[in-house]
Amino acid sequence: MRVSELSRRSGVTIPTIKFYLREGLLQPGEATAATRAEYGEPHLRRLRLIRALVEIGELPVASVKRIVDGLDDETVSLHELLGRVQYALGPQVSPPDGDPDWERAHHEVAALIDELGWQVLPRSPARNLLSGALMALRKLDVAPQGPSLRTYAERLAQLAELEVASVGGNPAGPPADEQDRAAVVESAVAGMVLYERILVALRRLAQEDASAARFGAGS
Amino acid sequence: MRVSELSRRSGVTIPTIKFYLREGLLQPGEATAATRAEYGEPHLRRLRLIRALVEIGELPVASVKRIVDGLDDETVSLHELLGRVQYALGPQVSPPDGDPDWERAHHEVAALIDELGWQVLPRSPARNLLSGALMALRKLDVAPQGPSLRTYAERLAQLAELEVASVGGNPAGPPADEQDRAAVVESAVAGMVLYERILVALRRLAQEDASAARFGAGS
Repeated sequence: MRVSELSRRSGVTIPTIKFYLREGLLQPGEATAATRAEYGEPHLRRLRLIRALVEIGELPVASVKRIVDGLDDETVSLHELLGRVQYALGPQVSPPDGDPDWERAHHEVAALIDELGWQVLPRSPARNLLSGALMALRKLDVAPQGPSLRTYAERLAQLAELEVASVGGNPAGPPADEQDRAAVVESAVAGMVLYERILVALRRLAQEDASAARFGAGS
Repeated sequence: MRVSELSRRSGVTIPTIKFYLREGLLQPGEATAATRAEYGEPHLRRLRLIRALVEIGELPVASVKRIVDGLDDETVSLHELLGRVQYALGPQVSPPDGDPDWERAHHEVAALIDELGWQVLPRSPARNLLSGALMALRKLDVAPQGPSLRTYAERLAQLAELEVASVGGNPAGPPADEQDRAAVVESAVAGMVLYERILVALRRLAQEDASAARFGAGS
């Protein structure tokens, strides 16, 4: 198909497609004349993946590039690819300089991960995200006395196992080909980002119900 | 204490304290002269609550006003107060006009809440938050096949029950006085907002571990 049809079918404008081609996010079409190229289904699939990363994940172009580069490189494992997606997601929290409360929170996070026996790289941005929230909590004089971090962690680990199992890529089977890997990454980015929102919304609904049962007029 | 000491002890600048006084968020001090007033511990506590709502909850001033008004009004139940906090939290999602996918997602959310038997007001903003994320998910051709919404909802309900139980206010005991109610609201806003971040961060860490176990080089 021509670029105009690729644009129509993908819902991505022609200038944006040309930008993706220049940045190397979209593989070039097959040149049929000096100024004309043919595109096919792989281009449509790639555009859908880029849209998921940009529109749902709100990833910067440089991160999208690292992910699509990894897709085509068989030496990059699926684990590494999913990590490239997750590590690029916001919010990115930077450690404040020399704040002892930050150091304490960061150590607490490291200790929790060790205690749980979780395999998480030292450079995972989620460590900083968790440290920042814990630090803010510790700075309050009246901290909520809810379930322990470990309780939350264990509940979420059960869900994460189900989530990761569902993204496909049977490790006992043959290696996933490029098309499978793209589908896995596409569904993973949607799962990571949209389910975070779903989790937050469901938690608020569950809290309203729990509060109604405990403090409501009808109880 | 004078306003200067109130500022020093609360960490809130004098112009901001004066703004809170004008807006009726902070109760007036006891006038000791035409241009002088004395403040006490209740003012310090109120400022701490306002800071938690503004800095952690990022609530607009009008919402903070409704919450502090509710604190002083004994006809407002603790459930209603907690609702005022939660309903004011972002992100606020507005329904798009006449999108059939939105209608479908919104019905799905209502059906889920009914099925779970949850007491949630029709105007709860978390319904729209959930509908928006579900709609985005349904618009994808490759939706992740993870645990069902109901599975997530049930896990979160268990946590919400522990969370709400921990905010205090024994329903069998005497009604909480103004000071107790302020402490409950302060700890609830911190719990609602900071634990959302903690949940997201822990989920990402748990996913990395689950992915390492399933797709990692070491597995």
